[in-house]
Amino acid sequence: MILLRPDAGLPERSSVRAALDELQIVVEEARLVDRIAFLVTGGDTSWPADSLARIPGVDKVVPLGHDATLVEATLGQNGQGRTVSVGTASFGGGQVGLIAGPCTVESPDALLQIGRSVRESGAAALRGGAFKVRTSPHSYQGGGPAALSELAAVAREVGLPFFTELNDPRQVEQVVDRMDAIQIGARHMQNFPLLKEAAATGMPILLKRHMAADVKEWLLAAEYILQAGNDQVILCERGIKTADHHVRFMLDVGVIPYLKRRVGLPVVVDPSHAAGDWRLVAPLARAAIAAGADGLLVEVHPRPETTRCDASQALPPGDFDSLAQDVRHLLALDGRELCEPLAGPSSSRNAVGA
Amino acid sequence: MILLRPDAGLPERSSVRAALDELQIVVEEARLVDRIAFLVTGGDTSWPADSLARIPGVDKVVPLGHDATLVEATLGQNGQGRTVSVGTASFGGGQVGLIAGPCTVESPDALLQIGRSVRESGAAALRGGAFKVRTSPHSYQGGGPAALSELAAVAREVGLPFFTELNDPRQVEQVVDRMDAIQIGARHMQNFPLLKEAAATGMPILLKRHMAADVKEWLLAAEYILQAGNDQVILCERGIKTADHHVRFMLDVGVIPYLKRRVGLPVVVDPSHAAGDWRLVAPLARAAIAAGADGLLVEVHPRPETTRCDASQALPPGDFDSLAQDVRHLLALDGRELCEPLAGPSSSRNAVGA
Amino acid sequence: MILLRPDAGLPERSSVRAALDELQIVVEEARLVDRIAFLVTGGDTSWPADSLARIPGVDKVVPLGHDATLVEATLGQNGQGRTVSVGTASFGGGQVGLIAGPCTVESPDALLQIGRSVRESGAAALRGGAFKVRTSPHSYQGGGPAALSELAAVAREVGLPFFTELNDPRQVEQVVDRMDAIQIGARHMQNFPLLKEAAATGMPILLKRHMAADVKEWLLAAEYILQAGNDQVILCERGIKTADHHVRFMLDVGVIPYLKRRVGLPVVVDPSHAAGDWRLVAPLARAAIAAGADGLLVEVHPRPETTRCDASQALPPGDFDSLAQDVRHLLALDGRELCEPLAGPSSSRNAVGA
Amino acid sequence: MILLRPDAGLPERSSVRAALDELQIVVEEARLVDRIAFLVTGGDTSWPADSLARIPGVDKVVPLGHDATLVEATLGQNGQGRTVSVGTASFGGGQVGLIAGPCTVESPDALLQIGRSVRESGAAALRGGAFKVRTSPHSYQGGGPAALSELAAVAREVGLPFFTELNDPRQVEQVVDRMDAIQIGARHMQNFPLLKEAAATGMPILLKRHMAADVKEWLLAAEYILQAGNDQVILCERGIKTADHHVRFMLDVGVIPYLKRRVGLPVVVDPSHAAGDWRLVAPLARAAIAAGADGLLVEVHPRPETTRCDASQALPPGDFDSLAQDVRHLLALDGRELCEPLAGPSSSRNAVGA
Repeated sequence: MILLRPDAGLPERSSVRAALDELQIVVEEARLVDRIAFLVTGGDTSWPADSLARIPGVDKVVPLGHDATLVEATLGQNGQGRTVSVGTASFGGGQVGLIAGPCTVESPDALLQIGRSVRESGAAALRGGAFKVRTSPHSYQGGGPAALSELAAVAREVGLPFFTELNDPRQVEQVVDRMDAIQIGARHMQNFPLLKEAAATGMPILLKRHMAADVKEWLLAAEYILQAGNDQVILCERGIKTADHHVRFMLDVGVIPYLKRRVGLPVVVDPSHAAGDWRLVAPLARAAIAAGADGLLVEVHPRPETTRCDASQALPPGDFDSLAQDVRHLLALDGRELCEPLAGPSSSRNAVGA
Repeated sequence: MILLRPDAGLPERSSVRAALDELQIVVEEARLVDRIAFLVTGGDTSWPADSLARIPGVDKVVPLGHDATLVEATLGQNGQGRTVSVGTASFGGGQVGLIAGPCTVESPDALLQIGRSVRESGAAALRGGAFKVRTSPHSYQGGGPAALSELAAVAREVGLPFFTELNDPRQVEQVVDRMDAIQIGARHMQNFPLLKEAAATGMPILLKRHMAADVKEWLLAAEYILQAGNDQVILCERGIKTADHHVRFMLDVGVIPYLKRRVGLPVVVDPSHAAGDWRLVAPLARAAIAAGADGLLVEVHPRPETTRCDASQALPPGDFDSLAQDVRHLLALDGRELCEPLAGPSSSRNAVGA
Repeated sequence: MILLRPDAGLPERSSVRAALDELQIVVEEARLVDRIAFLVTGGDTSWPADSLARIPGVDKVVPLGHDATLVEATLGQNGQGRTVSVGTASFGGGQVGLIAGPCTVESPDALLQIGRSVRESGAAALRGGAFKVRTSPHSYQGGGPAALSELAAVAREVGLPFFTELNDPRQVEQVVDRMDAIQIGARHMQNFPLLKEAAATGMPILLKRHMAADVKEWLLAAEYILQAGNDQVILCERGIKTADHHVRFMLDVGVIPYLKRRVGLPVVVDPSHAAGDWRLVAPLARAAIAAGADGLLVEVHPRPETTRCDASQALPPGDFDSLAQDVRHLLALDGRELCEPLAGPSSSRNAVGA
Repeated sequence: MILLRPDAGLPERSSVRAALDELQIVVEEARLVDRIAFLVTGGDTSWPADSLARIPGVDKVVPLGHDATLVEATLGQNGQGRTVSVGTASFGGGQVGLIAGPCTVESPDALLQIGRSVRESGAAALRGGAFKVRTSPHSYQGGGPAALSELAAVAREVGLPFFTELNDPRQVEQVVDRMDAIQIGARHMQNFPLLKEAAATGMPILLKRHMAADVKEWLLAAEYILQAGNDQVILCERGIKTADHHVRFMLDVGVIPYLKRRVGLPVVVDPSHAAGDWRLVAPLARAAIAAGADGLLVEVHPRPETTRCDASQALPPGDFDSLAQDVRHLLALDGRELCEPLAGPSSSRNAVGA
């Protein structure tokens, strides 16, 4: 809707019309109380509102449409959401999954121990970092492809699918055959070449929200993936940067019910990065589930003082076990259920193939 | 701890010492790896770090102490919190209370209807505004002392205590004899003359956090009340101002467990002002309880389109009833209980006097 | 403009109309491309958009009007701003004034020395705090009425008017006869009882922007003052709270040209509280003037290590003198001039009375 | 500095020491007033503070060192900064350069016209986008390699070097031989694979600050480039995301003098993206120069209503010419000078080669 200035007379109206004609935009005229408005009804509807607002005589342009049309179309007619599956793990549509593991892959033995422990507690998938995104070049940068292979081997051994982050479009081709799902980190939410490469694999993608992204920016990043033909997207909230420092990031718990009303994609929450302090992880996780989250992404480590990555937020395995119990209790509230692994350890890849 | 510049030699060290002597500050010298530090051990310890940092030769000053000492002392030895009671309603120490009612007092009949309804659902106290704090002078400013009298009469009729906001130190004396508790709104969190007047009544005070206050500022505002000799303080989180707009304010759910570890005062949550949208109120409320909140402050109205205040966030009475059920379920998780009114309606004032 | 849901049929249209009739709102119907809109043209136009949005069948309500009508009306026909005078000092309409002095009134001798020094450098007015607003009850709270009397005496001796902050509506009557202008601090920007009392004096009011206030909230606070019949308002930007810590607050330099296009009130800048570090004060002050500010409010102290208030941001007198020189150079850019005191020291009160 | 808990006794002290030994960290013990601290003096100093804080008995860990050591080492002994040259254009060390041009390359004719115009006004370099980073997949995505070739041809014709943004590590090799400098956009500030590829070219890199990055994160992104052996880095401030909407982003003008005291790299400012409104661009640009910026990056377009990208912030050529005049006046303040192109148009590439 293009609003003319209240004082625009016939000549301005004509010149705005002429400018719109030049841009091949078809409009209808509407008479508001104090001014004329043009409503775009056809022609080239791709012109940005900002451009039209610079036509002399135009006061402002109010977009009435939606931006993330593919993402918004994922919401079912009755408001129900979709399920996205990663191997045996399911998220959304009433299924809630716990993803747990260390920040980074440091030793295969420790990894195996953690993997078995979190599976025992009820985790549906593992997490672990091979290609780390570190603020400082002087910090530990992750183990790279070798670490990813270790992670895949442990996941198979434990019998769970796994999530790991990629951050370079060139990595995708290199390692995609060893992966179950691609995690896109917060800092790469708007790395569109990476999103396109990841989307092209057809693999499930967990898309973290940038710590300064508003909902529109987040959904439009997901829109890039859907536009590339891949709708296996899991949205992951992990906290917003604010002026506060009692938490590392402020978990936007309200975004969960907001998204549930607007899109059909599953929404999981990473309480570990939000809290930045292991003592706050379980309460934040419970809050996320109580607000409707379809899953959790939790960092777990039995001896955090010996890891070089995110030690402050790593939950001890015993606390993760209690948290899983709490989640089961909370899910009873609205009839959802925890997606838990079957009794015996079996390869998630076989499970997928079956 | 006063850190000298790494290149500070003997003369600088002497001149800093002389400056500290002049300010009557007693220090001990400590030799760090690359520099000298002075540790304040006595004398006039009231000098701000900022002032000491301007002494030539000083690099920086790291305060090691705490600011809100009275507030932090409310935490029990074993980490347990205190109960603050407002008439028959209790908050903290395992007791959880629901405070519900309309944004503002508009008609005694509607108020009575809402009051009976929320009591029936399980509310422990009423809320309602008489002296409103409105961003625009052109908005409805509240009914003033007459509205407060109506609110008090309805509360007695219904048999619940009530909370209402004061925003002018001159109001305190005028109306305090008709009140059960004083609510301090977010915008007045640092109105220190008001805090001192309110504190002097000895009445319970619900202190909302400003939408841009960090935890330190909030606790120091509470410290003003405790320093005035009144420790009946309930902290109320109601959302932080951010760049996001899907919620009106972002509920800081992480501050609940953070505060539980640091102070013993009850922490309640106002999901209505955080959400700014009634459809998000119940999920935020559930999240708050799951994270450990000691109570909720909820706006309820049966016909929001007929109220001039906060219509978008008013919860229909039926939804409030469901929410109270959810809260009972959630509290079972950690053995807390909902503080509910006794069966028959009775004056909260009598209850207090008994 | 009230937008119905796109799927609203005749029955919904009738029921919305009936609800609007009940609220005594007169509307015209407009047919947009995909839906019906009602445009409010008369009747009771005081209903908030939020309330109308809760009428069943309404999708959303887009307010088309302005809120701060009195403040916006201060802008001249050709976009020129107004001058507000405080004794001999003028701000706005091409006049730029420097307000300088210590954070707080600690000793009459030091105050007199600073006053003479800043007048010599070109300050048009003094500043100094008597009633301080301190985050902690354990910080120095200011000298109260006695300090205000000292400040007034020194200002008369030096021959400059002065600004000082009030923060309690009860102070206004008590001390207004000794004051030249009332400063409202950032934390009291929305203390509406205080604004009304201050406005009623008819005295010039310097209204600081809260560190989390958006422009609308700030202008609506000014609207309270204008609605009370006092249009002698100077707006003062002092920095916004963000997640950054290299500056204490982030100076919103863009708000200066933005306000110049929207309102006619003078806009001054407080670079001292924004910076929180004396080494950044002069560059911020130059930036403010280059962006069009009508004045500066600067903390100056010759021995900051001996003051208990805001030591880190106090500018040494020599630096203030250089800054005043820079300001004169910058003002040549757009033909504005520095409002400087006349040669001999004379009472500002006499000047006003003359 | 590792602070033990105040109540830590001999056994805790021993066990912390043992844990530090296991991590091969060498410490010295220091006795503070109320507790013991260990100061790290050698061994494996690469352990993050977060990890050490998880050792049982440790209260907190205060890092005393610096993170961005390579970047901080660029500051000269006397605080003077470095000059970074891009062809004939110079930034820093007293040289100030204007970079101007359209948001994106749309037509070679329009581009040539803009290029000649801004050179005439005093621009030292062109800007223009070929690989755009657009929030929505439905927005115009830029002309790609063909657009970059056009931009290079026009730049040669006009006789100015040019800046353009790359956002995919795979682009670097593809197009680097046609470029004069690589611009890294705000959303890719922490795209470390891209930074490393760009750094490896040895070419000057303009590194924009992310709209939510604090100074530490920004400098550490630059540190990645310097660590890869490339110190030809220009920092570019372009505004911070806040809750305010009168400007698109809030220009952090205080970061300019802050950085000048801390690092030697040139700091330029992009007032166009900060403002998001062409009417605010010139005042913000003047503010940036008055605060010490080493250059400006300005979007200029003669007919913004015909461009599909950033129309709202494009400055008309006449306004850019006035702005350049203002910059010359402002630079006289502190003895800096505008780096202007020589009279005749000549290839910037030849100039570099000469």
